[in-house]
This record gives sequence, structure tokens and C-alpha cells, in this order.
Amino acid sequence: MADAERKLSNGKSRIDFQTDPSKYRHWKLELDGDVAILLMDVDEKGALFEGYELKLNSYDLGVDIELADAIERLRFEHPEVKVILLRSGKPRVFCAGANIRMLAGASHAHKVNFCKFTNETRNGIEDASEASSLRTICVINGTAAGGGYELALAADHIMLVDDGSSTVSLPELPLLAVLPGTGGLTRVTDKRKVRRDHADVFCTTEEGIKGKRAVDWRLVDEVVPGSKFEETVAKRAKEFAAKSDRPAGAKGITLKPLRRERSADAVDYSAVAVELARARLATITVRGPEAPPPASADAMVAQGAEFWPLRVARELDDAILDIRANEFDIAAIVFKSSGDPAQVIAYDAFLEANKDHWLAREIRNLWKRVLKRVDLTSRSLVALVEPGSCFAGTLAELAFATDRSYMLAPSLPSPAKRVEDARERADAGGGLGRGLDNKPPATMMLAEVNFGAYPMSNGLSRLASRFLADPSDLDKAKAEIGKSLDAQAAEGLGLVTFALDDIDWEDEIRLFLEERASFSPDGLTGLEANLRFGGPETMESKIFARLTAWQNWIFQRPNAVGEEGALKRYGTGQKPAFDTRRV
Amino acid sequence: MADAERKLSNGKSRIDFQTDPSKYRHWKLELDGDVAILLMDVDEKGALFEGYELKLNSYDLGVDIELADAIERLRFEHPEVKVILLRSGKPRVFCAGANIRMLAGASHAHKVNFCKFTNETRNGIEDASEASSLRTICVINGTAAGGGYELALAADHIMLVDDGSSTVSLPELPLLAVLPGTGGLTRVTDKRKVRRDHADVFCTTEEGIKGKRAVDWRLVDEVVPGSKFEETVAKRAKEFAAKSDRPAGAKGITLKPLRRERSADAVDYSAVAVELARARLATITVRGPEAPPPASADAMVAQGAEFWPLRVARELDDAILDIRANEFDIAAIVFKSSGDPAQVIAYDAFLEANKDHWLAREIRNLWKRVLKRVDLTSRSLVALVEPGSCFAGTLAELAFATDRSYMLAPSLPSPAKRVEDARERADAGGGLGRGLDNKPPATMMLAEVNFGAYPMSNGLSRLASRFLADPSDLDKAKAEIGKSLDAQAAEGLGLVTFALDDIDWEDEIRLFLEERASFSPDGLTGLEANLRFGGPETMESKIFARLTAWQNWIFQRPNAVGEEGALKRYGTGQKPAFDTRRV
Repeated sequence: MADAERKLSNGKSRIDFQTDPSKYRHWKLELDGDVAILLMDVDEKGALFEGYELKLNSYDLGVDIELADAIERLRFEHPEVKVILLRSGKPRVFCAGANIRMLAGASHAHKVNFCKFTNETRNGIEDASEASSLRTICVINGTAAGGGYELALAADHIMLVDDGSSTVSLPELPLLAVLPGTGGLTRVTDKRKVRRDHADVFCTTEEGIKGKRAVDWRLVDEVVPGSKFEETVAKRAKEFAAKSDRPAGAKGITLKPLRRERSADAVDYSAVAVELARARLATITVRGPEAPPPASADAMVAQGAEFWPLRVARELDDAILDIRANEFDIAAIVFKSSGDPAQVIAYDAFLEANKDHWLAREIRNLWKRVLKRVDLTSRSLVALVEPGSCFAGTLAELAFATDRSYMLAPSLPSPAKRVEDARERADAGGGLGRGLDNKPPATMMLAEVNFGAYPMSNGLSRLASRFLADPSDLDKAKAEIGKSLDAQAAEGLGLVTFALDDIDWEDEIRLFLEERASFSPDGLTGLEANLRFGGPETMESKIFARLTAWQNWIFQRPNAVGEEGALKRYGTGQKPAFDTRRV
Repeated sequence: MADAERKLSNGKSRIDFQTDPSKYRHWKLELDGDVAILLMDVDEKGALFEGYELKLNSYDLGVDIELADAIERLRFEHPEVKVILLRSGKPRVFCAGANIRMLAGASHAHKVNFCKFTNETRNGIEDASEASSLRTICVINGTAAGGGYELALAADHIMLVDDGSSTVSLPELPLLAVLPGTGGLTRVTDKRKVRRDHADVFCTTEEGIKGKRAVDWRLVDEVVPGSKFEETVAKRAKEFAAKSDRPAGAKGITLKPLRRERSADAVDYSAVAVELARARLATITVRGPEAPPPASADAMVAQGAEFWPLRVARELDDAILDIRANEFDIAAIVFKSSGDPAQVIAYDAFLEANKDHWLAREIRNLWKRVLKRVDLTSRSLVALVEPGSCFAGTLAELAFATDRSYMLAPSLPSPAKRVEDARERADAGGGLGRGLDNKPPATMMLAEVNFGAYPMSNGLSRLASRFLADPSDLDKAKAEIGKSLDAQAAEGLGLVTFALDDIDWEDEIRLFLEERASFSPDGLTGLEANLRFGGPETMESKIFARLTAWQNWIFQRPNAVGEEGALKRYGTGQKPAFDTRRV
């Protein structure tokens, strides 16, 4: 099946993940003290691609990009908000789910990326609750079908009006022959803990479930008569707000538009640079801080979106999303860094010292989510730890997120020769003891943050995932916190895959990257999805592993996407024709 | 991509999972006291299908059926065996893995089923070790590539000869653009706990890894010089045997050929009957014991393969495998039972009382594996609990394994009418208080075995998986052990999905089964694979969820199976042509 290539609306050539409330077409954000009302009111004419309309509050990636932005802004710009009321701006419908025409016409790659991003957004809503006690109450006054109910599942509390017609449903299988793949099936079994046979009935019942049964089967938390609905919603909002520890008096910061300049083969941000120069290879270089951390938490707030850790996290997130959604041909992402490791560590120490400050907490949680986004990016990930790099503390997590990392070790033919070389370089302007390119030899540095602040979706830190075989390796690494680790030490501790000297460096890296680009892209996606997540599973990792993998499979099956498949035939009046063989 | 339909060898029309050592073409089983040598010596001309040869100890489903049989026979026929030496009967090659020509020409459905069965066989080897302390040492004297190394991964101990050329490898991705999907990737990360970046290097290195690095990277347990190889193998066998609790003096039983009669639309075993009469529906009826359990463990041994629990387990296993591999068009399997619940419970009590006897232990473990096979069968599973049925104890697990269960409740229009009806039936030959068809109303009965003896692949009992939301439901069910539970009680405890009276029964069941057959078979496979396994994950469940789902996806991608894909082009001298987009 050839992947359809659809045109973006309004003559755009790239999907852009940056937006702000002044540009929203599908959501309205209303603030009322510690309660935010996030109103879904999708503009039918505001589709991301040409060729379909977003009827009945159905959504596409463009709608979800705005939702993700709104949640981020509530976290950073409105620390006083404790409860989000997620509701519909349309009568009789909460949300009809992912737009079917969009799905039917989308390329396989876009469908997969769309599901991944929507899943990350739903996880983000849950992270706001768990990590920042910003609770979400989903207020369903109408039908919540498919992705609409999956969105509801991300909330802490689901309220359904008891009006005899409002239902929740997951009709994807009966109607479209695909799965409720935006976390739906997994949240039904693992979050809502719906009994498996009830879940089977629910997921095969097109018309959905309402009233008492919806509560008895744990599909919603309460059904409320229409006459008491608004009053009860207000009461719940108050109750949930009372349990939140978000700061009542704090003033937020503004998430200013990113500084971003794009050329044919590069994207430059303030502290992140993306090069797309070489065939099928993207290099992302993260620059360390130019100045020491601010003197106080207040000074951090005053820096706002310019504060280095926040700035880098937002830029890196955009860079990753841009490659994922727009640069399908990229086989591998190479992470580099430049700067002073000690400065990176100083910022980590600053955030650690201020970890009870709401903004520090939000920034750490943002890093956690961005790093998870890296883990889940279906490109080969490589880190090159070179002289002048600063893979330390938080930035070292980038190296630990990769499939492989290489560290350049100074080649030391003999101590005498070394001194001679160094003298030569010193004469040429460099200092004694410096290596290649006149920079000090590459080092890495560990910090406390590498041991739990940024769990992967499997619940473990990247180092714990790395050292599953022998947890004492984790203790050995911990003992080196704060020390400057040269290539030999880093390799010895298992922090990098290979330390190579400068004789081998270029050839080895080139050969490796060429080899990587020669392999089947699909095979690599599957391989990496398995090798990156050893050990335990969580609801989140189950969504990205079990559910997503099955959905990706089904998204290729003729019964769903073939010319006679359910997704293509939906709404045509013709029934789908299925290959009846069970596989 | 149309699924290729390949012909079975020798004019056969069905894949048969029954065999015995006298028929083996690919394995030799040698016994030496408490050590069994299982020699892989694949007959090139013995392929299951036409069109390929099994060179270099490569395997197809036929080879694996013999392996599974050999392991079962060691468990039942040779309780004195404590260690299996798994080795090759060919020089310089241990095993070249799954046959590539077989894979390249197989239908998608066969590939998926082949991988599932081979995975179950590898899990069976591990179960023999964990549950029966029958250890496996894999003796690699040559190359172990792909599925060959995946087979080694199932062993307790992997020995590799240090001869400068013998390697272990997982070259599937570089050579074939598919995954090491017979548990390989998951066992590398979760069993061998190979560091993820080392695993990345290993799985992309065609030529494999040998010598010290293979040990350092945890890929094998030891490398041994050729001169000391046999001596060390013998030493290890002795060491592992010393740690086994298998009974030294016991005499095994013979796993006699199943009594099995096949007609056009039915398969009849001694205690299991399969009907394929209705369109896309298979009904499996399990008959309860005809006689009470034997008086003693010795009497059980004397009954041997005729002992009811063993007989039913073997027959049920064959019935399930037969449907999986030969009846692709079957949408749903309906489980029924007939017999006396008290007798089933009596056999459970007998096995419980003799649980330290080697044969009782093996029978329980066989049931555990057969029930797991049911869980993993990609057909909709339904239980109908009707008057005269005996879903009690071990057989109740069948009902708990289904996606949905229905229980027939006597319709009781009024107490007076009930007595009148009963009198009429009594006059017609039935007893007082009997229901439909002159049988007593349907009941279920719980036993201790329902609370842990038969864990699913996620590590939980079926009831614990069912009651994830509220573990107190598990306690409530436990309190009912041994009581005869009518439809109302069973529904109230959550043991069945719906209790229906006889007014609704036939229509409801018919509508449900028709509806099920109308859905996309692929969608149902994905849905059920997600809903059946809520809660925690184990290495085993990760193999069947994460790894298998990704492999199934890749098994459809043109980069693997297309005309220009790696699997099709392998060995042709032409390089595969890949769609380079990452998804």
C-alpha cells in the first residue's frame, strides 16, 4: 500500500508544533481563579491538512498541538491554576475522536506519528496531575466517542451528564476496524481497571454506555442529572483544588515564542542547533549555559523563558518534534554538546537547591517529558562525546537515552610525544595538556539528577535501565558524582558504549552511521523499541509498546486501510469487505 | 500483499502437532542416566512445506513441533532426567535459525503462528527449569545464528566453544530486515540483561560475537577451549543435575498417541470434542471425569496418560493448536463443558493432595501451559455455562480465560409456576427442581487452584487479572470455594459476564456470535491482545506483547516482505531496496 501524501492546509510545507493562545483555532482557555476551563470548540475549517473538515469536535494533529500547548502554558504561565475543567464548547457532543477522514487519507507514517504525539499529550495531562498536582476534571455533557473518550481517560475524574443520551464509547473496532490506540485500551484496563470482559463488551458496543452502567463498570466516576450538573461540576472543582499544592500567590512566566531560524539544511535556536546536512543524518548540538545560574529563585523567575534549562528543554523538544513529523528520511540523530560541564552541573545544583519552588519543579518535569520524547523517537540515537562537550548532569541524560554512544579518548602514543605535541599546540596558542582542536579532552560528569529525577516511561532512570544486570554498577556510578570522567573512566563505568582514540574516531563513526542508514528503517524502529526499554513496564510503557505496536500493525492491514477496508469505506454507505482469516 | 499459500509436504492437508520419537526426523534423544542429550540434526529434506530445504540446522514449524514433543516427553516419560544438553548433531554449526526460504514464502498468518508456537516452546523449556527443575544447558560448538541463538537463550546455561570461529549472533535485522522475534530481543534485555547499547551493537553485527566479549557482554555464560570442551560440558551437567529435585528413582509414564477422530466438521478426542459446524465458529466441549480419582499416587501413575486431567490437557492442547494452525477462518471459539462439577473438584483435590508427587506436579504445569496457550490464541474466546456443564476448579479457568462468558439462569416466572413446571418435568422422567433439558440448573464451583496454581503469562492468576480494580473481590470469591454457585451468584461475584435466562439465551448468544464474526479479524486480534493482559508484565508477556506485535508489524512491511524487501531478496545476490522513511 503506497502511503498517501497529503497537502498541508494554507500552503504550509511543515507541521509546526509552536503556537500560542492568540493563534488557537480549536480551544478556548478561560481562567477563573484557581480553575481553568479548557473548552474544546474545534473549527471545522481549521484542519491541518487539505481534504477533510473537523466536524463534531473531531480532531487532527493540529488540534492536539494546541491542546499540548495549552497544558504547558497552564503549568508555566498560570501556577495559580489547580484544576482544569476539560469540556466541550459545542452542544450535545463532547468530542467525536480522531477525525476519520484524516485517518483514512493519512500516510502510515503520519498516522503513527499522530498517535504518538496524542499519546504524549495525554501522558502530559497525567504528568501535570501526578508531578504538579494540576488536576483535570473531564466534564462530559454530550457524547464522548473514541479519541474523545480516550481524552477523558487522561483526566483525574470523569463526570457524565445523565440525560438519557450522553454516552461514552470506544467504537473504533466496530466502526473502523482499528484500535482505540491513543492509550484507550490500556487506560481502560490499567488505569480505570475495567474488568476485562466488561471492557470487551464496551469496546465492541458502537453506541456506547451511559448512566449507571457507566459508573458500575468504572468507565466514568459519576453520572449527574442535568439539573444538578453545573452545580456538581463547580463542587468537584473546589474539592480537587483544595487538594492541590500549587502555589496560590505565585505569578507565572511567559513562554515567549522560541528564537528559531530555519535554512535549507539547518534549524538554529538560541541554545540548540540542528544540522540536516549529511544524507539521512541529523545532528543536534546542545550548547551549555553562557553564564552561571541566577542568584535566587526570584532571579530565575525574572529570567523566565530565557532561563537556560527551560530554554534548552523547549528548543530541544521542538527540534525533536520537527524531525519526527517533517523529516521522515532521517535515519539517525546524533547528539553533540558544547560548553562547560561545570556550568551545566551548576544549573542542576541550582534546580536541586530550589526544587520546592514551583518553577524549578515545572522545569524539571519538562525535562523529564522531553527526555521521554527522545526515548520514544523512532530514529537511531547516537551521542558523540568529544572535546569541548558538556554531557554532564541533565545533558548526560541525552547520552544515556541513545542507542549507542562514542567518546573520544586522546591518543597517547607516549608520554614524551604527548608533552612535545602539547608544547607545539601551546606555541600555536593553545594551553598545555589540551587535546584535539585545542580543547581539553572530552569528559563526562554525573550528578544526582542522573539517578531518579528523569525516569523513563518504564519508571526507571536511564542509568538504572542501563545497569539492569548488576545494580552495583549503579552504586559505582553514583560514587563518581561530581568527578570529571575521562573516556577511559566513562567506558569503565559503562556510561558510554565505546571510547575511541582519534586514530579510529572518524572512520568508526562514519562506518557506523553509514551502516545504520543502510538497514531497514522499519526493522530499526522495531529493534530500538524493544532494546530501549528493558525491565519493568508501566501503564505508560504499555501504551507505547503493546498498544502502539498492535495499532501500527492494524494500521497496515487491508481490513482497516485497504480500498475495501473499514477506514476507507466509513461513511460511504458501503460495508467494508474483510479478509476473514484470523492471524 | 496477498498471502502466499504454500503446499504442505507429502500431500498433507493439515499441520499435525502430534508426533513421537519414532517419527522424529530432526532430533535425536539420547539418555544417559540423569542427563538427556537432545541432538538437533535437521533433515534437509524434511521440511513441513514444499519449496525449501532445511540446510545448516535451520528450522521450520515441523522441527519445532518435534522439539516441543521431546521436551514434554522428558518431563513425563523420564522423570529421572535432571539436565538436558541441547546440542547440534552437525559439525561447525549449532543452528542457523528459522529457515529464510520458509519465512520468505510463508503467508503472514503462518509466520505469526510459527513465531507464536516457537515462543511457546522456548517458554516451555524455561518452565521445565523453573517449575520442574529440569535444567537445560545449551552446548554451542559452531555458529548459533538468529533463531539458533534464540533457542540457546531459553537455556539455563550457555556454553560456547572458544575456537576462534564459533559465534553467537542475531543477524535478522541486518540480513533480513526482521526482528529476532522468537523472544530474542526480550531475552537479551530481560533475561540475559545485556546492556542496551551492547545489545544494539550485537543485534546489528551480522557476523556475531565470540570469545571473551561474548562472556563480558553476558551473551553466553562461558567460553571454553575446544580441548577442554567435552570435559567441561560433562562437569556442568553434573553440577546442574546436583541442584535438581527431580526424583531419582521414579519411572515415567508413556504419552500414548491421542485418541483422535477427525471428520469434515468435527474432531473427537476421548474427553474433548471440537465442532466446526457453524460458519466461522468452533465449539470445544470438555467432558468431565467419568469416574472418581484414583485411590493413590501409584494408581495415578498406573493410569498414566489415561488419567483424566492429563488426558484432557493433552487433548485440549492439540485442539487449540489445530484450530490455530489449520482453521484460520474461525472467528470465535466457544468453550462448553459437560459433567459433574463435584468430580472435577475431586480431581483437583487429588492433585492438590499429591502435589509433591512428580507426576501431579507435571500435570499441573501442563495445565498451566495449556491455559496460557488458550490465553494467547488469537480468536475470540467465549464460555457458555449451561445446565449440565462442569466449569469447576481447573475447568473454570477455561471460562476465566475467555473474553466473555454467559451463564444460563433458570427463568423463574413465579414460585408457583416453577413448582408446577418441575412436577411436569418430574412426571416426564426428570427430578424435582431441574431446569432446561431436564438437567440441574447451571452452576460453577471455585477451588484453591483458581487462586494461583495457573498463572497467566503476566504472572497473575486469571481471577487476579480479572479483579485488578478491587482485590477484595478476590477475597469474596475465595470465600465461596467449594460452594455450588448458581448464575445469580456467579454474576454477582463477577465470575461470568452475563447471566441470562432462557428467554433471552439463544437470541443473545446468536446475536453476539454473529456480531463477533462481522468485525475485522485483525482488529479483534489487537483488541483482545490488549484487553486480556491488564496489570503487570513479565518477560514472557513482554515477548508476546511488545516483541511479537512489533514483529507482526514488520512482517507486513514491504522493506521485509515486499518483492524488493530483504526477506525476498536474501540469497539472490541482489540487495534489497528500502523505503527509507522512518515511521
